[in-house]
Amino acid sequence: MSKISEELAELKINPSRLRSWVDEISTIGKNSSGGSGRLTLSIADKIARDLVSSWARELVDEIKFDHVGNTFFMHYGKNPQLPFLVTGSHLDTQKDGGHYDGVYGVLAGLEVLATLKDNNIKLSSYENEIGGIAVVNWTNEEEVRFCPAMGSAVFSGSLVAKKVHESIGIDGTCFRDELKKTGYLGYQFKLPIKAFIETHIEQGPVLEAEEIDIGVVTGAQGQVSMELVFSGSADHSGTTPMHLRKDAFMAAAETMTVLKHAVAKEKRGVLTAGEVTLYPNSRTTIPAEVKIAVDLRHPDKEQLMHFKESLVKEGERISDEHHCKFLFTELSQKLPIDFSQDLIDVIADSARKNSYSYKLMYSGATHDSCNIARIAPTAMIFIPCRDGISHNPKEFASTDSMGKGANVLLHTLLGLVK
Amino acid sequence: MSKISEELAELKINPSRLRSWVDEISTIGKNSSGGSGRLTLSIADKIARDLVSSWARELVDEIKFDHVGNTFFMHYGKNPQLPFLVTGSHLDTQKDGGHYDGVYGVLAGLEVLATLKDNNIKLSSYENEIGGIAVVNWTNEEEVRFCPAMGSAVFSGSLVAKKVHESIGIDGTCFRDELKKTGYLGYQFKLPIKAFIETHIEQGPVLEAEEIDIGVVTGAQGQVSMELVFSGSADHSGTTPMHLRKDAFMAAAETMTVLKHAVAKEKRGVLTAGEVTLYPNSRTTIPAEVKIAVDLRHPDKEQLMHFKESLVKEGERISDEHHCKFLFTELSQKLPIDFSQDLIDVIADSARKNSYSYKLMYSGATHDSCNIARIAPTAMIFIPCRDGISHNPKEFASTDSMGKGANVLLHTLLGLVK
Repeated sequence: MSKISEELAELKINPSRLRSWVDEISTIGKNSSGGSGRLTLSIADKIARDLVSSWARELVDEIKFDHVGNTFFMHYGKNPQLPFLVTGSHLDTQKDGGHYDGVYGVLAGLEVLATLKDNNIKLSSYENEIGGIAVVNWTNEEEVRFCPAMGSAVFSGSLVAKKVHESIGIDGTCFRDELKKTGYLGYQFKLPIKAFIETHIEQGPVLEAEEIDIGVVTGAQGQVSMELVFSGSADHSGTTPMHLRKDAFMAAAETMTVLKHAVAKEKRGVLTAGEVTLYPNSRTTIPAEVKIAVDLRHPDKEQLMHFKESLVKEGERISDEHHCKFLFTELSQKLPIDFSQDLIDVIADSARKNSYSYKLMYSGATHDSCNIARIAPTAMIFIPCRDGISHNPKEFASTDSMGKGANVLLHTLLGLVK
Repeated sequence: MSKISEELAELKINPSRLRSWVDEISTIGKNSSGGSGRLTLSIADKIARDLVSSWARELVDEIKFDHVGNTFFMHYGKNPQLPFLVTGSHLDTQKDGGHYDGVYGVLAGLEVLATLKDNNIKLSSYENEIGGIAVVNWTNEEEVRFCPAMGSAVFSGSLVAKKVHESIGIDGTCFRDELKKTGYLGYQFKLPIKAFIETHIEQGPVLEAEEIDIGVVTGAQGQVSMELVFSGSADHSGTTPMHLRKDAFMAAAETMTVLKHAVAKEKRGVLTAGEVTLYPNSRTTIPAEVKIAVDLRHPDKEQLMHFKESLVKEGERISDEHHCKFLFTELSQKLPIDFSQDLIDVIADSARKNSYSYKLMYSGATHDSCNIARIAPTAMIFIPCRDGISHNPKEFASTDSMGKGANVLLHTLLGLVK
């Protein structure tokens, strides 16, 4: 346990302030649906960035933004050249997204800095081995207006800034022009990271269903995106006996049924056939072609590959039985990411000290943390959200949950100040 | 065996004439695809009717048409007040249909009359108990331009002529106006029927696959048209564990898979999910709703009802397991139709006498015969068609097959002249 952590063991964040900040940001770019529509580098995004900066200005030593608009709210320690504790997420949203996804992670970080300020705590007053605490707003996590263009990807070196600058948005605009307009086009700088912690709503139903306060996130699932095409023959639904059919839908339905049972039985992975298209899609014609977009995810690399191979094998076997052809295309593959065991331990410890219930879990969705994990020790803190709903105006996290997540973040960061 | 049948045991129709008639009709209303587009009461339908009438005029005693345009080419016997042997089908086609569906049945009948004429055979020269032979073209079998408006349905009393007259077509026209324009609006008259025989392409793959000349049709399958709606919840494909999902597609796929296996195992029925619609149909969202148009057919009433009930039962059970709701709507139900055993025997006898291979089979599709079977002894003669394809420009039956079917028809009719 760090010295500062022992001294400040009773410190709590202010949930009311955190709630009022979240609510105030949610009024910016609000759609008629009640949802948030703050696309990356839109006017609404700029206003939200400006508002958060205006709050941060009172709390931090410096605000810095880099060449792709990633914005860092810096609370310096005694030796700012040392690696930083970094926390944060993103302020941009889906076209009609919720008020918590990303926003909560940035504001929970700011709330930690505000709590230190409330209590006249400055890291520079303590001897320690960190450069300070930085709260970050990564540019474009949502990949709606510009794609691919994630600030955390450029920061971690997996995307080149030049390519991001030249990106053309869905509205025909250029990323660099739009970034310049917001006033957040800065210069590339180095910020060594000792630990990156992202707080986020779970975006899934597990914590709420199990009545658990905190998810200590051990990593992110791997994901394989695939397109399956089953090809048969468009024959008459009345005159073609079952054994002479080439029914592409029945082949597809059986393949997905078999794989679903296998994945569900193993318990950790998820399998979704979200998009299914039939041709000719006519009541009295046997389907000649069925295309299925399949999303397969698993936290374990070997199991992810195993289920992908099973899908191909079963698809071929079952198509063969249905006298159909089977075509498999892999659209993308992301391997599972393991977060830092040291950080996982500190987060769990922080939850225990706060007397919050917690569980170890992996992230079903992709986050900025998945990029940062490539270059620095990283982990995440999840809080429950209502009905597991996200990317939707109905997205909701209670003030109590947000407060608990921010308290765990506070004491995780303090625990790392050594 | 009838006397005339014994005398004329060696009589054969002329396959070349039948082929040339079919080919000539196929030029009328020909689409750029090569298919036939003779919608009911269109100009193309009128031209085809006129052409067939011009051929018939040389062969028959009288041409009569009734109040819905059903046209009868009458070869009278000695006592025209007695019940007739009637054969025929329809000249109208789908929008881009084939050249054989319906047309072959009308022209095979006419070919029988032409063969009698070639050989100077007049039924009126024989003592017998039939009024004569009539070849019929039923108005609107295809139900594309007007629906429901089948001439055989009015003739058999299951549809009221007034309702048919008032029908508005897909092009906004009125049935009676359009019928009048063709010149085939006549008056209702009585034509008692001793037997109705319809020759037709199989519209399925069985005869060709089994290399059989003739299908002796014992009846028509029953059919239940249904809409199934599976309702779940549109959750995130990455963050929602399998056991907390309400995946409407997986419920639908498993239901159809289970039923397909049951129907295929029993061997006689057919089950098709031709039209499947997902909502929201997005790659990374669990399907919230799946609608499936299901077409279930079976020649046996009890089995048809059994599979319908199984579908409801399994749909409910499997939806329950998937935390989904299941809604079943029956759109229409037609019970199986048994054709006349006496006629089936005469047709089979006729095939044997011609040394043609044959098999007893039921009709997968609905035909005019299904209407006429309500009021008179009815049966059908099927011939093979290439790859079982119908309602398609690729529809094809060989001259040899057409000739064999017409010979079976000829000797079936002669066998019934008692």
